[in-house]
Amino acid sequence: MTNKVNLAEKLSLFSDHWSPKIVGEVNDFDVKLAKVKGEFVWHQHDEEDELFLVLKGKLVIELRDGKVELNEGEFYVVPKGTEHKPFAAEEVHLMLLEKKTVKHTGDVVDALTVREFQRL
Amino acid sequence: MTNKVNLAEKLSLFSDHWSPKIVGEVNDFDVKLAKVKGEFVWHQHDEEDELFLVLKGKLVIELRDGKVELNEGEFYVVPKGTEHKPFAAEEVHLMLLEKKTVKHTGDVVDALTVREFQRL
Repeated sequence: MTNKVNLAEKLSLFSDHWSPKIVGEVNDFDVKLAKVKGEFVWHQHDEEDELFLVLKGKLVIELRDGKVELNEGEFYVVPKGTEHKPFAAEEVHLMLLEKKTVKHTGDVVDALTVREFQRL
Repeated sequence: MTNKVNLAEKLSLFSDHWSPKIVGEVNDFDVKLAKVKGEFVWHQHDEEDELFLVLKGKLVIELRDGKVELNEGEFYVVPKGTEHKPFAAEEVHLMLLEKKTVKHTGDVVDALTVREFQRL
């Protein structure tokens, strides 16, 4: 029997920004938690849609043709192949859902790029 | 540009129990919302893991070798091939995540079986 996951408990285990942690797996998808603040890099995932669910705070996802503002209890799915840049004026807590094949910053390699996601 | 989803708003649009609504798609996965109360049927999904995230209330997932109690902000992934029976003494609001191939009650056909999930 696998264990249940308490989101608040997992979130209490880390404080680094822009470094999603794997907290669950559903077939070939990972469930991740992240804390973010400030600006991420423009990037895209050619094959993977990416779900952002805001657990706390307000996240802005900039797109080339507009932007999406997400408050607590709201999610948005960035379609595959769509350039996006997340931004958070204040710290935001996120649940992410994406295929295991996804690369953190797409084909962009940046100081923020995480090559292997940590499991919590 | 697709639209963001507000969980509370979507939940306000329906009141029927044990009838998950599709509110988002991430590659070959559906994100669903459901309201449940009472007892579901024993069933399993041979190929699909199934994530239950409790948004409100307390859900019990009975398994053949135990049970999992989920409160608000907790999730559990029922591994594929695992018999399970959800139960809610009081109404529970859920977010579900599962592959589009999943059948509501597995190979069991019951009065509760939904053959085609509604989109909201």
